This record gives sequence, structure tokens and C-alpha cells, in this order.
Amino acid sequence: MTAILLAMTGMDSAAWAERFRALDPTREVRIWPDIGNPADIAYACAWKPKAGALKGLDNLKVLFSLGAGVDALIGDPDLPNVPLVRIVDPDMTARMAEFVVLNVLLHHRRMLRAFADQRAHRWLQHDQPAASSVRVGIMGIGQLGQDSAVKLRMMGFQVAGWSRSPRSLPGIETFAGEDGLAPFLARTDILVVLLPLTPATRGILNRSLFAGLAQDGVLGGPVLINAGRGGLQNEADILSALDDGTLASASLDVFVTEPLPQDSPFWDHEKVIVTSHVAADSDPQALARYIHEQMIAFEAGRGLTNVVDRATGY
Amino acid sequence: MTAILLAMTGMDSAAWAERFRALDPTREVRIWPDIGNPADIAYACAWKPKAGALKGLDNLKVLFSLGAGVDALIGDPDLPNVPLVRIVDPDMTARMAEFVVLNVLLHHRRMLRAFADQRAHRWLQHDQPAASSVRVGIMGIGQLGQDSAVKLRMMGFQVAGWSRSPRSLPGIETFAGEDGLAPFLARTDILVVLLPLTPATRGILNRSLFAGLAQDGVLGGPVLINAGRGGLQNEADILSALDDGTLASASLDVFVTEPLPQDSPFWDHEKVIVTSHVAADSDPQALARYIHEQMIAFEAGRGLTNVVDRATGY
Repeated sequence: MTAILLAMTGMDSAAWAERFRALDPTREVRIWPDIGNPADIAYACAWKPKAGALKGLDNLKVLFSLGAGVDALIGDPDLPNVPLVRIVDPDMTARMAEFVVLNVLLHHRRMLRAFADQRAHRWLQHDQPAASSVRVGIMGIGQLGQDSAVKLRMMGFQVAGWSRSPRSLPGIETFAGEDGLAPFLARTDILVVLLPLTPATRGILNRSLFAGLAQDGVLGGPVLINAGRGGLQNEADILSALDDGTLASASLDVFVTEPLPQDSPFWDHEKVIVTSHVAADSDPQALARYIHEQMIAFEAGRGLTNVVDRATGY
Repeated sequence: MTAILLAMTGMDSAAWAERFRALDPTREVRIWPDIGNPADIAYACAWKPKAGALKGLDNLKVLFSLGAGVDALIGDPDLPNVPLVRIVDPDMTARMAEFVVLNVLLHHRRMLRAFADQRAHRWLQHDQPAASSVRVGIMGIGQLGQDSAVKLRMMGFQVAGWSRSPRSLPGIETFAGEDGLAPFLARTDILVVLLPLTPATRGILNRSLFAGLAQDGVLGGPVLINAGRGGLQNEADILSALDDGTLASASLDVFVTEPLPQDSPFWDHEKVIVTSHVAADSDPQALARYIHEQMIAFEAGRGLTNVVDRATGY
């Protein structure tokens, strides 16, 4: 018996069960808390599971996270000691690149000003720098970051990447570690953040980081685009940096508290584009296929991909 | 004597003269109406010239338009009978592609709804189609259209192009002429218009064209993006098509009357993004270099590029 357990909140478990059944009608799918005999459960698919939902699964072989970020699962003291696989599929990667390219272009082309001009019925032509004079820096250059980097380069931007450990990527200047952070920030006009949330990255988007960004760029001030995790943000620091010009503008898709509270000052901030954690809101069908293919590969002895290193948290 | 005449309105003639002098201090630059001896003028650079400004230049060799579109010049009954060169440079091409990719992504990612959600403090996740399920159609696939097509394909969209006469482009489905228009429109969810304004295209963006666009697409209705010329538009038809759902939304960078009049209903239309004819507002320095290089090539007998066919108007 190799049943699949679905342990998720805020997602439609029944729809997920249907997707797995459509891919393989012979495999049983169970929805927590109706797990039947726990010994039957070989795979679990989790998204913000209720506390204890993953306990006592003695024959569990693989745990799948239904997203790219696994910080919520990693923090679970009852997390079973089996491979934890996160989702890194081409569909999600392409959607993240859409979000990144869209938001870089929104700030590059000063669309916040253009929208204000439209509201005020103002026909104005502002100076417009060439993309080749604008430096985008991506923090976090895994699969998602690399795809975004390639697409931004193709749009003409100067692109660099920063990661915790050194990486070499064709055509993209890379920086790494603590030592590489200051020079990376100093050459960055638009900062795109795709970092995982780990103890090392919590609160990393703070005043001291913003103050290190390029202040001599052609856009008139640095831009922050965060599509990683809300926990990366010191939100008071973002607000004060926007107020005093340390940051010119921002696109925030994630927040410390989600849903973003009704009284958050971000909603009405004229320099901020708020979206509702939708940067890479992937097609559930594509994700189910990804998990299904991983199960088949695992059973055929071909191994798993995108297994999380619990020490680093990604 | 091979002096350059600058005959422009709405542009800074003195700044243009400086650019040409910086590129070649030995070449004389004159600003209309101070043209000196007309027989000295070998080149003229024109942008919306005053009536008659280009008359009596008996030794004129080449006329340069300071933009990609030459409809305003072609309509001049006094246009000298010399090669008319339009601007098609990599800088302008890249900027147009920025505008096209930005606006396609704005509608694809339903950002008009996201901005409304932000204004209303609504944290909502809407369904989001994959780019691979969205069909973009580009009317006008010259240099600008081809570059935009390549970049949209790289973002994952299904891209096709339509042109007056048949063209074959790698990786892009092409349609041509009157016969090709209906099948092109029927497979198009997002219509990007980069056509020149000619007697054949004036008013082409009308109800009957909009009604031919795909009504079965994943975006919930067709989208119009016009970065060509305002004269392509039947603006009453655009408004009524938006009102009755024949069009779901639009990005308009050009208008029949520019500047767009204060009382135009487009300014406050919730389904329309208005920009101020800035889609490919190029770096004047890059344009001056382009013209300078053409003059050098011409004098060296290597010929001119991007010479306008006066019969077709582009």
C-alpha cells in the first residue's frame, strides 16, 4: 500500500485528491484527519498542516511541500525524518519570472508616476533611462532567480546575483556570502529578493541593507522588489526608508503578517505596489504532475530532486 | 559643404545641434529658419517641421525622420524627392519591447484588478492562467514587432504576427494581408498594435476588428495594446467595445488627438491604462549616433538603411 496523505490548510483538499486520482487511479488518496491506517501512508503532501498532522506516519517515505518555500514545515518539531521535497517546477519558475520582469519594468518605466499622471489627466513625457543603464540585483539565485536573471538580461538590464554560497552563472555577475553583500548592494539599483526564509535571512531586508544600495543610479533611488517571504522584511524599516528616500519605491508580494492587515500603511502608500502573495501562484494541475512524477521516479530508484537541506533550510 | 539642417517642432533643436557637433565638429549644423545658403544643406533631420521648411533645398541628399513613424512627413506635399530614412535603432527597439512586454504582463497578470484590490485593501488571490495558455498577436512585425515577439515568446506566451505582405519568422506563426486577418484575430487574446499609419491602416482599430478577436480565451476577454499611432484608432469604437465586453481592457499610448484632451473619457476609464506617447521614447544621444552613422555610410557609398517606401508609407 502506498497511499498519499493530504495535510493542508487554506487549500482545497478535495480538488487536490481529484488531481492525484486522475493521474493514477490505482493509488489511494486520503485527506487528513481521515487517514485510515497510518501504516499505509507512503507519501504526504503538506501545506501549513495542522499541528501533529504529520506525526506517527511510520512508513512515510517522502514528504512533499506544496510550495517553493518550506520555512513553515521546517519549523515543525514533529516533522518526520524523511526526505522533504519542495516544488521547483517550470510552471512556477515561469510565473515567478513573469512577476519579477513585470515589477522590474513597472519601476524602470516609472509606472507609479504614469498612473498618477493618468489619474490627474496629465500628459507628460518624463526622461526615460535605457535598461542597459539600470542594474538589477537578485538575492537568491536558485532555479527561480536564475530564470528571472536570464529574462531580465534579455530585456537589456545589467543583472547580478547574490547567494549564500558561491555560484557561477553564465553571463551574470555573481557575489556570495557576507563579504560579497556590500559590493553586490553597491552596484544595485533594483533589488529583487527571492531568498528562502531561514534563521540567517529573517529580517535581512532592513535599513542597513537598504543604505548599502546604489544611491547614484539613473532611477533616482533604489527599488525593492520582494517576492520571497514576508519574514525577510523589517517592515518599519521599509516604511522609514521609503519616507526618507533611502528607497524610491517598492513592490511587496509577501508580508510578515498575511493576509496583510486592513490598517497596514502599505495599502495606501503611493510608492508601494502591494500584491497578495501571488507572485508564483502556480497551476495546481502542474504541481500535482510534478509530485506524481517524483513519486514514480522515486519508486523506480531514480531518486528525488529538490530535496531540502534541513541545515540551510532550502 | 555638407551642412545638416534641423527642422523640428516640439523638440529641443539646440540640444540636437550639440549632439551632432559632438559627433563631428567639422560638420556644420543649422537650425531652421536660420538655414543660411540653402545650397549648403545636404542632410535634413525633421520632426513635425513647419510648413515649407523643407522646400528649396536643391542639394539635399537625405531626409531623416526623428522617429520610427513617418506619417506626418509623408503627408507633406512639399516633401523633397530624396531618400527618407526613419529611425529603427536598437535603443528604440529595446524600449518598445519594454513597453510591449510590460503591458502584456500587466493585462496577463490582471494588474488593473490587483491595483483596485490594493486601493480597497483587499487581500485576494485570483485564478492566474499560465503564459503558455495566452495567445498574443502582433500587428506589424517589422524590426520593433519582431523584437517584441522574441521577448514575449521567451516569457512563455504563444505569439503570432500579422503583416500586410507575407513574412516568415523563426518560431512565430505569421499571417498576412486581408485574407490572413480573420484567422489571426480569431487566435488572439492580447492584440499588440505596432502598425504604421497609412491610408490603408487609418481607423483599422474598430468594432469589426475587435469583434474578430478570440472570445474563448483564458483571460475572460480580448485585450488591446496600441503603441503604433493614434490615427489607427476609432476611439468611439474602443470605448463602446470596452463597455459591452468586446474588449476586456486596453493599454493606449497614442491617441487621435495628442496631447489627449483633458475631458477624454480614457483618462478615468477603469479598464484602460493611458500613457503619454512614451512607448519608445528613445535616448536622443542614441538617435543622433544612428543618423551620424547613416551619413558616414552614405558618403562611403555603403548606402542607407531603413529607407521609407513612399508607396506603402513605411
